Amino acid sequence: MNDGVTKAGTGSTKNSVDIWVVGSIGIDDIATPREARKDVLGGSVTYACAAASFFARVGAVGIVGSDFPEAFMARYRSFGIDLAGLQRAPGPTFRWSGEYETDFINRRTIRTELGVFADFKPELPEAFRGTPYVLLGNIGPELQEHVLNQASGARFVIADTMDLWINIAREALHRVIKRVDLLMLNDGEARLLTGLHNLRDCAAAILSMGPRYVVIKKGEHGAHLFSKDGLAIIPAYPVDAVTDPTGAGDTFAGGFLGFLARSGRTDEAAIRTALLYGATVASFGVEAFSLERLERLTMAEIEARLVDLRKMMTIR
Amino acid sequence: MNDGVTKAGTGSTKNSVDIWVVGSIGIDDIATPREARKDVLGGSVTYACAAASFFARVGAVGIVGSDFPEAFMARYRSFGIDLAGLQRAPGPTFRWSGEYETDFINRRTIRTELGVFADFKPELPEAFRGTPYVLLGNIGPELQEHVLNQASGARFVIADTMDLWINIAREALHRVIKRVDLLMLNDGEARLLTGLHNLRDCAAAILSMGPRYVVIKKGEHGAHLFSKDGLAIIPAYPVDAVTDPTGAGDTFAGGFLGFLARSGRTDEAAIRTALLYGATVASFGVEAFSLERLERLTMAEIEARLVDLRKMMTIR
Repeated sequence: MNDGVTKAGTGSTKNSVDIWVVGSIGIDDIATPREARKDVLGGSVTYACAAASFFARVGAVGIVGSDFPEAFMARYRSFGIDLAGLQRAPGPTFRWSGEYETDFINRRTIRTELGVFADFKPELPEAFRGTPYVLLGNIGPELQEHVLNQASGARFVIADTMDLWINIAREALHRVIKRVDLLMLNDGEARLLTGLHNLRDCAAAILSMGPRYVVIKKGEHGAHLFSKDGLAIIPAYPVDAVTDPTGAGDTFAGGFLGFLARSGRTDEAAIRTALLYGATVASFGVEAFSLERLERLTMAEIEARLVDLRKMMTIR
Repeated sequence: MNDGVTKAGTGSTKNSVDIWVVGSIGIDDIATPREARKDVLGGSVTYACAAASFFARVGAVGIVGSDFPEAFMARYRSFGIDLAGLQRAPGPTFRWSGEYETDFINRRTIRTELGVFADFKPELPEAFRGTPYVLLGNIGPELQEHVLNQASGARFVIADTMDLWINIAREALHRVIKRVDLLMLNDGEARLLTGLHNLRDCAAAILSMGPRYVVIKKGEHGAHLFSKDGLAIIPAYPVDAVTDPTGAGDTFAGGFLGFLARSGRTDEAAIRTALLYGATVASFGVEAFSLERLERLTMAEIEARLVDLRKMMTIR
């Protein structure tokens, strides 16, 4: 299946990264009520790696086609993303096009062309196998499982998923969920997965499947973290002007895991703080298309907005 | 119009209450996905006064028909609500019936029968005129204005409204908004009122109309408080089992204003804390129909849940 695949990335040494992320890499056409853009760099790996790179050394595991522009590779490199896990295969790169409604939240997929992504079989570079922090982005659970089997050094694994896999690959998804430390999904997906409505009930059901933590995302309304010890309310930063919400969940996950890796901890207090960082980075990400806001984002801006967000949360 | 109206309440002395609330008093038929109930005590005055009564002396300003059961009057009295402002008129009490969708959030009004409410003209008892804290519940803005004109001692006035008044009585509503200290409305209403989408933009537009504070409610997702000094994120307590969300906004407003009155302050820090109390009382209210949960609620339960909620909000 992966005939003709070559490593597109640079070389790397043992444990070259703190985190690796597997998922989609795509070229997107996006229409919002204010602006439409074509051929922008997208995919879960793209957003999550860029976000994580602010806090830790991060590697990408994904596949691109022969049409993937060198300029996009250069953008990955500008974030310091290790590309040892990036496969390049003959054929077109995964393409997605979507249109947002006036609320900038609900969206309609206009077109999905899998291209080389259809035959993606993620292989972990030797140098990533001992990596402690792992983000299994939204790809088929069999692929998540396949790559997780290679991750001998994984210490904290988070997985994302989507309605499609819940509907068509539930058994494999359950196997993955059983093995991860934290499952991240949105409210609709949590309800679909469990058949329950109340998010506390959903979370209890998911925790009983194996993970120590469940994060249920509520988009602009923030997220809830659930564990056996209780519940944490993670607010979203109220963004002044949303330009493009695409990738917000991946940016959230990447910023979260990046900060967690930097902290070196996996206890609940660290997870709460890391989620607040994830929410903050995500709030910047949606201010522009693709990685455009993250490319000019500074740590000082992240810290300043976090202070701002904490003030908004302060009730004496 | 108010011929035959008699005071149904008990006598009262000067400044007999800390807060008064004007709004609707109704008898509701409510269907939720789990249970349907007929002839339950409802209306904005009912929920708001009961919630406020945990913290301060509260008076009701409203109208009921000749069919209004004595048992409902007794329930008001059990909360210690001053009924000097309650008019009783010949004819039927206001009736509302509605049905909730499976999400327990979206609802459909099946029937509204105004009854004596159609001719309601709120008159403030002498003993309420010097009252400092005022809640103008969701009634026509001309009525809010009429009663506010009698409130010579009002020091902190909050108003609620709804899409109906925004659509049919915008000019009067603007006059009311100009005179209140805090406008409370939900996200959809804020967008309808301002023609803007982003809640920060909505809030800025509303603040420019006059109020010092705007609270935009987001239902199960909490609320945002806006002032010229910034924004506060008020979480909702994640309720285990919602039984009936009817009146949650009024319970929130009542609990908020009750606590604010108890604090004796109107600065932003006090308002934030009071909103958290409002959210907490509202979270109890939705656990049962009508006032049933509030009737067995204790201050100790409120304080315990507030501690719980604060823990959920704690990110170090």
